[in-house]
Amino acid sequence: MPTPPEKQRTVFFVSDRTGITAEALGRSLMSQFDGAAFRQVTLPFISDVDKANAAVARINAAGRADGVRPIVFSTIVDDAMRVIIQRSQALYLDFFAAFIGPLENELGVKSSHTVGRAHASADNAAYIQRIEAVNFALANDDGVSTRNYPKADVILAGVSRSGKTPTCLYLALQYGVFAANYPLTEDDLKRGQLPEALLPYRNKLYGLTIDPERLQQIRHHRRPNSHYSSSNQVRYEVRQAEDVFRAAGVPCMNTTLPSIEEIATTVLHQTGIKRRF
Amino acid sequence: MPTPPEKQRTVFFVSDRTGITAEALGRSLMSQFDGAAFRQVTLPFISDVDKANAAVARINAAGRADGVRPIVFSTIVDDAMRVIIQRSQALYLDFFAAFIGPLENELGVKSSHTVGRAHASADNAAYIQRIEAVNFALANDDGVSTRNYPKADVILAGVSRSGKTPTCLYLALQYGVFAANYPLTEDDLKRGQLPEALLPYRNKLYGLTIDPERLQQIRHHRRPNSHYSSSNQVRYEVRQAEDVFRAAGVPCMNTTLPSIEEIATTVLHQTGIKRRF
Repeated sequence: MPTPPEKQRTVFFVSDRTGITAEALGRSLMSQFDGAAFRQVTLPFISDVDKANAAVARINAAGRADGVRPIVFSTIVDDAMRVIIQRSQALYLDFFAAFIGPLENELGVKSSHTVGRAHASADNAAYIQRIEAVNFALANDDGVSTRNYPKADVILAGVSRSGKTPTCLYLALQYGVFAANYPLTEDDLKRGQLPEALLPYRNKLYGLTIDPERLQQIRHHRRPNSHYSSSNQVRYEVRQAEDVFRAAGVPCMNTTLPSIEEIATTVLHQTGIKRRF
Repeated sequence: MPTPPEKQRTVFFVSDRTGITAEALGRSLMSQFDGAAFRQVTLPFISDVDKANAAVARINAAGRADGVRPIVFSTIVDDAMRVIIQRSQALYLDFFAAFIGPLENELGVKSSHTVGRAHASADNAAYIQRIEAVNFALANDDGVSTRNYPKADVILAGVSRSGKTPTCLYLALQYGVFAANYPLTEDDLKRGQLPEALLPYRNKLYGLTIDPERLQQIRHHRRPNSHYSSSNQVRYEVRQAEDVFRAAGVPCMNTTLPSIEEIATTVLHQTGIKRRF
């Protein structure tokens, strides 16, 4: 007799800030349980008693509706809010409380238990650097000019749709890195060589490559049944781009499987570029 | 007699993936200890025994150099790597191991302990949506045309340097939201009203405002001692922009203190826009 399917549970990510960290860690943990389906709800900005009580009401209502108790992942910092959320009829897992005790012991001081210290944005210099990095990525996104390359930390090269733009933006937002990108032209691909103008910056170059099948899917989504998304064209471009990287000694990675976060972090890690935060 | 300053400790963020989550949560925890200075080192992609052993060597070396044992925040999923890192001479805090047990008990199943399930990028549809959202933000960044506004989930309006562009990009990357942005023109500000062309999209508009002093700093960094960054101009623009939002009934938030993550999440939360992941 087949076992009846487990009831669908609701998983809550509760935070006094954005909930982004609670989501990342909670999802990573839940992804370890194959096949189980979870409804996900993020409750951000739980910053006062009323909001905490409303969160508890919502958590308990989900438990009644599901017929199985919810799971709560919390990064709540404030003790007053924590005490309230903790009283919900859920499995309560607290990423903050579990570690603050051991840290207090180790450091020999009490923590401040103050919300809102995790972000450096109040720090003007860091905020401005982050914005400048984003602007740099935007202004140097299509390889029209090498004028700003002396200021670049890294220059991503690759064929159209190999992941250059989102990786540059993520490098800017997450790490404050000044990342330009250079789309290899028909001409570069034909010659199998970097253009003259790039040679002075060769040591800043990092190549992105991608499996032809995946590239075709991505391009097909953009321009269905075009030369641009044809199997032959895509295979030709990828092969030639890899030749260009090899000939010029440009390090390169395959972006087919990793997420944008992983591509950006790999570039950082392999090039040794200094991050700004 | 003043107490001697505590020795500077090294804090390690260790992960078999990017380390971004370990950093976020570890930094949030460490920020609770006022005044203590920590050297931060991220060790990402610790995905085999050799890398784990090298990480331990580095952690222990830092402890010897500092004269005080390091703190390790880990999101390592694989048991084989965890066992190695755990043996380092550090305070070892494991965001994964601490919660996987309670979850296994609750769900009544063993977890797979498999690295690399947290990212949906292998899921083509989600990857393509993320890229499409980034492209949408880029293509609709300067308000030149309202042509794509029917496809927008949200349209951020505000004066130059109020945070529109990075917020749109973050909404795209983190949540897959299609966010356009519209910089209020001299004309809009003078009239104190939204332009005709925006009226059909009024219910998609969300305003960003900012304290004049902060805006002046940001603009000054860009164009020092210009009309654009003058105290009078900045105060005039902010006042008029707030009038425009008020007159048109456009909800709005102040971006002076929150981080880009917080601005993006607040927009999502207050508008009720559906995120795509």
